[in-house]
Amino acid sequence: MPIRVALLGTKFMGKAHSQAYRNVSMFFPDAPPVEMKVIVGRHPQETERARQLFGWQEASTDWKKTVARPDIDLVDIATPGDLHCEMALAAAAAGKHLICEKPLANTLEEAKKMLAAVQKAKVRHLVMHNYRRVPAVALAKKMIEEGRLGQLYHFRARYLQDWAMSPDLHLVWRFSAASAGSGALGDLGAHIIDLARYLCGEIMEISATLETFIRQRPVAPGSKQMKKVTVDDAAEMIVRFQNGAVGTLEASRFARGRKNQNTFEINGSKGSLAFDLEHLNVLKFYDAEDAPDAQGFNEILCVSKGVHPYADNWWFDGHILGYEHTFTHSVYDFLKALESRSKIHPDFVDGVRNQAVLDAAVRAAAEKRWVSVGT
Amino acid sequence: MPIRVALLGTKFMGKAHSQAYRNVSMFFPDAPPVEMKVIVGRHPQETERARQLFGWQEASTDWKKTVARPDIDLVDIATPGDLHCEMALAAAAAGKHLICEKPLANTLEEAKKMLAAVQKAKVRHLVMHNYRRVPAVALAKKMIEEGRLGQLYHFRARYLQDWAMSPDLHLVWRFSAASAGSGALGDLGAHIIDLARYLCGEIMEISATLETFIRQRPVAPGSKQMKKVTVDDAAEMIVRFQNGAVGTLEASRFARGRKNQNTFEINGSKGSLAFDLEHLNVLKFYDAEDAPDAQGFNEILCVSKGVHPYADNWWFDGHILGYEHTFTHSVYDFLKALESRSKIHPDFVDGVRNQAVLDAAVRAAAEKRWVSVGT
Amino acid sequence: MPIRVALLGTKFMGKAHSQAYRNVSMFFPDAPPVEMKVIVGRHPQETERARQLFGWQEASTDWKKTVARPDIDLVDIATPGDLHCEMALAAAAAGKHLICEKPLANTLEEAKKMLAAVQKAKVRHLVMHNYRRVPAVALAKKMIEEGRLGQLYHFRARYLQDWAMSPDLHLVWRFSAASAGSGALGDLGAHIIDLARYLCGEIMEISATLETFIRQRPVAPGSKQMKKVTVDDAAEMIVRFQNGAVGTLEASRFARGRKNQNTFEINGSKGSLAFDLEHLNVLKFYDAEDAPDAQGFNEILCVSKGVHPYADNWWFDGHILGYEHTFTHSVYDFLKALESRSKIHPDFVDGVRNQAVLDAAVRAAAEKRWVSVGT
Amino acid sequence: MPIRVALLGTKFMGKAHSQAYRNVSMFFPDAPPVEMKVIVGRHPQETERARQLFGWQEASTDWKKTVARPDIDLVDIATPGDLHCEMALAAAAAGKHLICEKPLANTLEEAKKMLAAVQKAKVRHLVMHNYRRVPAVALAKKMIEEGRLGQLYHFRARYLQDWAMSPDLHLVWRFSAASAGSGALGDLGAHIIDLARYLCGEIMEISATLETFIRQRPVAPGSKQMKKVTVDDAAEMIVRFQNGAVGTLEASRFARGRKNQNTFEINGSKGSLAFDLEHLNVLKFYDAEDAPDAQGFNEILCVSKGVHPYADNWWFDGHILGYEHTFTHSVYDFLKALESRSKIHPDFVDGVRNQAVLDAAVRAAAEKRWVSVGT
Repeated sequence: MPIRVALLGTKFMGKAHSQAYRNVSMFFPDAPPVEMKVIVGRHPQETERARQLFGWQEASTDWKKTVARPDIDLVDIATPGDLHCEMALAAAAAGKHLICEKPLANTLEEAKKMLAAVQKAKVRHLVMHNYRRVPAVALAKKMIEEGRLGQLYHFRARYLQDWAMSPDLHLVWRFSAASAGSGALGDLGAHIIDLARYLCGEIMEISATLETFIRQRPVAPGSKQMKKVTVDDAAEMIVRFQNGAVGTLEASRFARGRKNQNTFEINGSKGSLAFDLEHLNVLKFYDAEDAPDAQGFNEILCVSKGVHPYADNWWFDGHILGYEHTFTHSVYDFLKALESRSKIHPDFVDGVRNQAVLDAAVRAAAEKRWVSVGT
Repeated sequence: MPIRVALLGTKFMGKAHSQAYRNVSMFFPDAPPVEMKVIVGRHPQETERARQLFGWQEASTDWKKTVARPDIDLVDIATPGDLHCEMALAAAAAGKHLICEKPLANTLEEAKKMLAAVQKAKVRHLVMHNYRRVPAVALAKKMIEEGRLGQLYHFRARYLQDWAMSPDLHLVWRFSAASAGSGALGDLGAHIIDLARYLCGEIMEISATLETFIRQRPVAPGSKQMKKVTVDDAAEMIVRFQNGAVGTLEASRFARGRKNQNTFEINGSKGSLAFDLEHLNVLKFYDAEDAPDAQGFNEILCVSKGVHPYADNWWFDGHILGYEHTFTHSVYDFLKALESRSKIHPDFVDGVRNQAVLDAAVRAAAEKRWVSVGT
Repeated sequence: MPIRVALLGTKFMGKAHSQAYRNVSMFFPDAPPVEMKVIVGRHPQETERARQLFGWQEASTDWKKTVARPDIDLVDIATPGDLHCEMALAAAAAGKHLICEKPLANTLEEAKKMLAAVQKAKVRHLVMHNYRRVPAVALAKKMIEEGRLGQLYHFRARYLQDWAMSPDLHLVWRFSAASAGSGALGDLGAHIIDLARYLCGEIMEISATLETFIRQRPVAPGSKQMKKVTVDDAAEMIVRFQNGAVGTLEASRFARGRKNQNTFEINGSKGSLAFDLEHLNVLKFYDAEDAPDAQGFNEILCVSKGVHPYADNWWFDGHILGYEHTFTHSVYDFLKALESRSKIHPDFVDGVRNQAVLDAAVRAAAEKRWVSVGT
Repeated sequence: MPIRVALLGTKFMGKAHSQAYRNVSMFFPDAPPVEMKVIVGRHPQETERARQLFGWQEASTDWKKTVARPDIDLVDIATPGDLHCEMALAAAAAGKHLICEKPLANTLEEAKKMLAAVQKAKVRHLVMHNYRRVPAVALAKKMIEEGRLGQLYHFRARYLQDWAMSPDLHLVWRFSAASAGSGALGDLGAHIIDLARYLCGEIMEISATLETFIRQRPVAPGSKQMKKVTVDDAAEMIVRFQNGAVGTLEASRFARGRKNQNTFEINGSKGSLAFDLEHLNVLKFYDAEDAPDAQGFNEILCVSKGVHPYADNWWFDGHILGYEHTFTHSVYDFLKALESRSKIHPDFVDGVRNQAVLDAAVRAAAEKRWVSVGT
């Protein structure tokens, strides 16, 4: 029996998730079969077009009916953040497994409700922090778990873009707290907080500042009517981890020239790792156990068969992978977890913890002091 | 009416081409529709499995019948080189459009026959030198054509791998002149000769040396029976172009640590360009017309919408593309050319010229002198 | 009349400053002549040896007498921080011009006294923040002043080393608050705070955390007697600038594999700059006014004659400079300022402001809240 | 007794060598003492100025008298190539030790005469192929000798500059065969041929092409009178080594944007090394014996004390060295060899062999065929 999927969302993330369902079985033949049942959007025509292009069987504009359909096993939420909670609650109530785009919700309260709902429904749940499944990141995790970095001292990450820098850019949903929750913080910061937690461990306390460089924007393209931007353009954070490590985190949409630079470095007693999403096939590793005269940051091209995560399923050694396959890998791992009834990460528990960090960052910035990360 | 495709070949290249047909319309909605009709292989089970995984309608082990079928419009040859000529001749005779993997043939004579056949049949033809459609390479071509490099002085390229370095590796088809024609020269050298011709112009004369470092190999995995390797492991070439530029070309399977390094640099009077396939989203550009204090090699991440080749059809700015979409782009451009009945490059004329360079390289190496590239 | 110099300090910084005096006139023939009069150290033999090796006329172990000598024009303080204040006060009282290693003092109070003293004495004064005179940094400053970055949004810097990571390393003076004032904060952080102020402007407020990973160390090499480390191993800071920019600053001696990585990135509305001291001849510049298809981080090798700061005085284009010439440049500029009686930066005013930021960082870390930077 | 030096040449190389003599004892206290006795140039005023700036005791315009002086132990020839032979012969006849700039001579015949002269005189002799003493290159040599690369398969090098690209640049001595012998070939090619021989072994045979892109130039700055350029602007070579390795070598003054890019890569059965003079403190090492998941090109910053060649004598770990200290190291090693009466490399034997390769390259280019490298 294939796993029958309903996808909520037809835009960028809808397309990215669709690609994953469409191709997962071609490259991962052992993936449980999947049926691309319904895609749901707001606008009938757009949704129908997405259905055709992406390869779904049906198009719908009614997400409520869709998530309740008995012939759906898995609901994948790829909409703006203000819809996540309601959708997840309905899908969980209908007993559907859940994939949800990040950040899990727009508030910590919502996130907790969503977690309670999936736990009550005993369904499986994944937050789409897709960057955990970049092969280089999966390799980083493996190396850390194998103790190859020793005790961790530092984690520093930044996620920088520059698309928001023009004052002429109008007030798209990402500039509105009502729809997006926060700005760079929730959009980009959530990704690096997830990587921080995944690779370095739980964040204990945080200090932050949020800044909105362009404080009002046209309500529509070309309009002279201006409206207040209600989210941050940039978030700067320093953190202390439970394991004693300290770190800096930064998310910005105002870093001229950085198009999609999601980069981290982690320093341990025995080694260091560095990664940059703009060169996503590469992990840099400094190994203090190399011969003394040969120590340096080793540029590992993470595409060797029999050696690197996911590499066996792709092309020959050194043939690089693209951004979209972070989703292919995520969907593959989730399908396997459904099949084997095993745990999958990051789940809604992770989603709640991530949200707790975002929540603490907002409070720390407002109160100008260090804040403990509660859950 | 969709364009109905028969694909000959189920292995690495069969998979890469399949991926292109499978996804082209999702990302390039204006592509003429394509029907993945038949995939052809030698072994029934393997071919049936490829059919299922890749998404073809039918599987066949009889390429001769297949290429003659009236419900096929396009034959795509993705087999070892010793089959190209016979297959292409049959497909052309049946009036099919043709895509053929590189190098076009195993000898210049074969290549010429194939060109004559497609010209006589008045079908369209493409040699799958997929690297022309790396966005960074397409951008390089555009910059050169716009005169941004000025007069060209140097072209240097190398295509380096290291998979053949173990003496334990047995005599796969790529080590046999009978099936592969040549070794690194035809496999890797053909790619950089194509880029040399595409970006810098026709090669006038060549000097070369070919070397086989491991001269005999086991006939099968683990076997103690050894057989002679009949192809080169490495090819070193210096060339003179018709436009007065000079260059070095190198292809090797014995470059430890270089997994798939297809890299070139081109120097002109006004600027230089550098590319490396292992970081395929990047083109480096030195612009002598930049402000004097700001001149340097500019690391262009070739993934900006509205700006870079093919970028409009993919993800957001800075979200990197993988190797396989060089095929997606090639298939897209070929489908568009079929639709518009316009010229497509590189065609079999290019294939013949490429083969002429390979042929001259072999003679130059054997005769230890410079050889003019004839056609 | 040559400028007669007394150098206090014979170790690493004593050697670096000596090199500058020894070579400045060879490479900068228009520098006022300088006489390497006296070098002062604690140990007679070591000091005599330094005298011979570095090329000073006399050696002395009495700094007080030395700074009072009538045949000394310039006192250069290259000792640990706990001696700066007393030495500078004495030298200023004797009417000597002053160069002082960074950080200016161990406390803000000391720094203010030193400033008052040089102002009262009407002598010229320089804090040896030598990295301002890396050609790439000088170029960065010029570009920012010319408006080529537009409005500044972000400054992020880190200065990372790893020499302190072994628990066996004993309690050298740098691990003691009494002699060094602070740890990574004052040693490395002071450098990047200076660059932040130089390139981005005054820091308005700060939040920080300080961490000491190895809290006690042997009192001497190989000793089993342990003593408390009284300084930080790492300092993490977020800052808000007066011009509205925000930033992260990090200093650590526990970043495995980073030997001397003093790196910054600055993002403005029109462009970005990036620098790394481990590749000190390079400045990376993203220019949003480049042709759209050619935008990227431009790797400028800052060694072109007629174009880059200080380049005319060195070797041919592209012949790279070493670390020590940051001192050569600093000494040259100071000598020229003495000659022309013009202002030199960074002076003790800068030193005081730098100290105020360090001071605020310490308080912010202790009080776990944002602190305004006063002076 | 100090070693008393006469330096012939006051320009770029004169300055570089002077710097070495001036500073060697400061950084290498165990170097035998050296006395900077006489600097010799053509023009009295220029030579006197060089004397003052560089720190020589005397200035002279008569090299013949100078090399014959009894109070000179070592003659250092840093003049254009057409003077090397006569000078070296005279100095050897006078029993002086010799350092000579590269290439040793303008012809193979001259080089052989020079070698015969120093052998007859039983003096010590060094050709100033200074790049052997870049710490990264010395480390490369050590690694190769330790067998860490295994059997060598490939050596590829290029030395690229762009200073000659303007047609307005007049006919300086480097464009004249009479004074310079050859163009890019002897100037830049000699360096990489030396590195090829040093790191990979003797070159057995060679094929080459030489090109002069700008064939006539103004006789003087701004002049409209044109004269023929009699040297090459670029040299492209392929070579076969005695050990079975094959390689490409390229020297050009027409590589826009490459200011001083002397770069090589060497591939062996067990590892690879890569170097670029524009980042001269870095050696990249691929070690096939690293853990499989951690293999990659390791960016070694060759400035760690107790670990890397020459590092103990310089600054702290990670503090980078500049171009000029390749001369400091060369002079140090030569002085030590004089003291210990031990062999020094590269000597005039190396110089002759280098010249034999240059000679073979010229013949190969002229005769359009492979040429054996004789000596």
